[in-house]
Amino acid sequence: MQENNFIIHTNSGLYTDMYELAMAEAYFKEKKQDEPACFDYFFRKLPFGGGYVIFCGLGELLPVIETLHFNSDEIDWLHKQGFNKDFLSWLEAFRFKGTIRSMQEGEIAFPLEPLLEVEGGLAEVQIIETLLLNYLNFQSLIATKAARMRYAAGNRHLSEFGLRRAQGLGGISASRAAIAGGFDTTSNMYAAKRFNIKAVGTMAHSFIQSQQDELTAFRKFAEAEPYNCTLLVDTYDTLKSGIPDAIKVAKEMKEKGHHLQAIRLDSGDLAYLSKRGRKMLDDAGLHDVQIVVSNQLDEYLIKSLLEQKAPIDSFGVGTSLATGQPDAALDGVYKLSEINGEPKIKLSENLQKVTLPGRKQVYRFTDETGCFAADAIALEHDRVPDKMIHPFDVEKSKDLDINMAQPLLEKIMKDGKSLLKKQEPKDVAAYVQKRMQQLPDEHKRFNNPHIYKVGISESLQELRSDLRKKYKM
Amino acid sequence: MQENNFIIHTNSGLYTDMYELAMAEAYFKEKKQDEPACFDYFFRKLPFGGGYVIFCGLGELLPVIETLHFNSDEIDWLHKQGFNKDFLSWLEAFRFKGTIRSMQEGEIAFPLEPLLEVEGGLAEVQIIETLLLNYLNFQSLIATKAARMRYAAGNRHLSEFGLRRAQGLGGISASRAAIAGGFDTTSNMYAAKRFNIKAVGTMAHSFIQSQQDELTAFRKFAEAEPYNCTLLVDTYDTLKSGIPDAIKVAKEMKEKGHHLQAIRLDSGDLAYLSKRGRKMLDDAGLHDVQIVVSNQLDEYLIKSLLEQKAPIDSFGVGTSLATGQPDAALDGVYKLSEINGEPKIKLSENLQKVTLPGRKQVYRFTDETGCFAADAIALEHDRVPDKMIHPFDVEKSKDLDINMAQPLLEKIMKDGKSLLKKQEPKDVAAYVQKRMQQLPDEHKRFNNPHIYKVGISESLQELRSDLRKKYKM
Repeated sequence: MQENNFIIHTNSGLYTDMYELAMAEAYFKEKKQDEPACFDYFFRKLPFGGGYVIFCGLGELLPVIETLHFNSDEIDWLHKQGFNKDFLSWLEAFRFKGTIRSMQEGEIAFPLEPLLEVEGGLAEVQIIETLLLNYLNFQSLIATKAARMRYAAGNRHLSEFGLRRAQGLGGISASRAAIAGGFDTTSNMYAAKRFNIKAVGTMAHSFIQSQQDELTAFRKFAEAEPYNCTLLVDTYDTLKSGIPDAIKVAKEMKEKGHHLQAIRLDSGDLAYLSKRGRKMLDDAGLHDVQIVVSNQLDEYLIKSLLEQKAPIDSFGVGTSLATGQPDAALDGVYKLSEINGEPKIKLSENLQKVTLPGRKQVYRFTDETGCFAADAIALEHDRVPDKMIHPFDVEKSKDLDINMAQPLLEKIMKDGKSLLKKQEPKDVAAYVQKRMQQLPDEHKRFNNPHIYKVGISESLQELRSDLRKKYKM
Repeated sequence: MQENNFIIHTNSGLYTDMYELAMAEAYFKEKKQDEPACFDYFFRKLPFGGGYVIFCGLGELLPVIETLHFNSDEIDWLHKQGFNKDFLSWLEAFRFKGTIRSMQEGEIAFPLEPLLEVEGGLAEVQIIETLLLNYLNFQSLIATKAARMRYAAGNRHLSEFGLRRAQGLGGISASRAAIAGGFDTTSNMYAAKRFNIKAVGTMAHSFIQSQQDELTAFRKFAEAEPYNCTLLVDTYDTLKSGIPDAIKVAKEMKEKGHHLQAIRLDSGDLAYLSKRGRKMLDDAGLHDVQIVVSNQLDEYLIKSLLEQKAPIDSFGVGTSLATGQPDAALDGVYKLSEINGEPKIKLSENLQKVTLPGRKQVYRFTDETGCFAADAIALEHDRVPDKMIHPFDVEKSKDLDINMAQPLLEKIMKDGKSLLKKQEPKDVAAYVQKRMQQLPDEHKRFNNPHIYKVGISESLQELRSDLRKKYKM
């Protein structure tokens, strides 16, 4: 086996759909590859029946775009696939030289608004489509799921445990996005090293089973991990043996100057068992031994447990977080909005699926308390709009106070070079928490959240209307 | 930016949960790291409300296990995480030396039965847990989804288009598993090269929009791709402009000795549009121009379209396939079944969650027509069972004809060396199709499929029963 079989090059130009390269080839043959074009990235449907999306993945995506290339081995393979030789010479020299304007990573975003706009030569902006969608759709989905769990959990500790059920290597970026969305730690060692995240881990049932009995297993683990010891108490009988054995060991650890950090409940009724467990620990004077729970958790279960006043200090969440269940994908798309300075539109019978033409800016309007009140999508070089139109019911409008507007899209890459300094997922998390404080609670609730107002400026509405007429048969 | 930032090492020992290494360290400190242990991989719940799972991922997993190691950079990082120096010396020299018995990749599998058993030293079999679950859970999920679509599609062409909505780098293995489960082609260039899959691609709406009009766009694409040309006909108006323009170009191509391969419908009512489109093409004498459809397809939509006799030649499937919607994860687990020759059990209040102790074999019994009739789980060195017991209702049993039994677990790795020759995903696919023919239709249907009978041998039932009594308080 060659070592190369065990390497994935994340900045390989082949990380794309074939049609991107087929189109690039067609543009090249027409000598249209450098025509200036602009694409938007936006989504239409909020995941999880929720009220918002956390925009995530940019920090990992940008360096990939910056260094994206096709190596000679890949060029040879493309030649065998029937691609044209001249085009392949162009592709071999390919580097992305475009410009990107984007929301900050961690921004709270809503349907229809461009989260990011890419400008550059037609072929290069086409080639990065699949890659860009792959990173941003997935990480935004997971960061959004994580933010929902953070909202439910208040300030309790949240740990991501999803790698075993994650979608293959997707588990690596899942851990990154979980931290960005509000998780504290991960069990995923590869991601912890790669993204400088704090890794945590306890023990599995197999550790208990591998010893002659549970008490022996707990003692051995406490000896091996005296400063980082969480004992799993549900292998045989949580209340009759698991917690009593853990209490014995906690007291023995105390005598040695060590400290049992927590007990972990991984099955059964977590509300009932955590209350009983807390009482047993407290009665033994072990007030500082925490309770960690896991087992098929999601934001609804976390919320329910805390409403029941379950005395839980830490939640471990796996599958539903790392895979974004039940949605599994954000429906973000990347659509042409301008070519050669001419705004473009994609029509549909359904107005909701008609794209917004032209290069745009998104303005966020806050109220007097600093809370988000509405977003307006305008053309890039419009003045700040003082009125916005409902995107699908154009007879409805809303007045805006231009003094309360913040533009959300900023230039983050120019001529192929990133303008951002390196961010850790926890830096993104800090921004997410700041912005989540500005989002009113009614948009954060899980059941029928209030729909955040997103409108379009009058000039954007006029442009869309003109183009619909122009292309209509 | 260092090139290293753009490399993922799939055989890194860090591709695991922290607790695997914490447990390995504890075993090492007790000098138990080499105690012979056996773990089972099995799942409990069938995904998609279906009747079976396609076991997939083995061909990619095995070489990873064979070469799994910790490099010096990783060892240094683990040292900073507080791991013990002697343990890290052991870990630096770590290579997996265990033995694996497994079903063949592509086998049809059912709940509770071990799909794979790993034997080796306690620490090494523990260390590979997360990695093994990550590969097998995900690829089995996707191959199963693909097999359901293949079942619905009959012999029509199926192409995987999911990379843009895939879960990050998980999209690479998703394409592999899609082919193994029965898809013909992929749009994912990275996976196509890596796994020797045929790549296909058409064009996006942006290509049409980037040209002065649709007819020009079609002509330019036909010139650029004369032998591999599929035209997307729904950018402006499918029936009034898209298909008529495609017909003009198809005729022009014919005159030049070229051939329009297909038109592609990506929105609207696909049954209606494909019927109308087929008639328009046929009326123009273009009987050999095919119809490709895409847009949020899944197995139910494919089935429905074909029941409506939609004249579709090829389906492109993205999100629901590449992410395994709506489930997004298979619930496979990896449980200790034996240590030091002693069978082990994990108890639960719920008999369905009690594990099956000991090293096991799975026997598949066929009927006189060669169709699968029942599977029996037995202890490894049992004789072939002539009777099986219902796993949860032990008063129910079924007689078996030992002459119709095939053992499913075979040794595929010995002392850390793979015994399998390299398989392409299409080799796996051939086995899947062969086995799917042996699976009666009532297990393949989508609504309330008939439950396939899986039982346990009498000696396995006795062992489980004895161990439950032994560990019961």
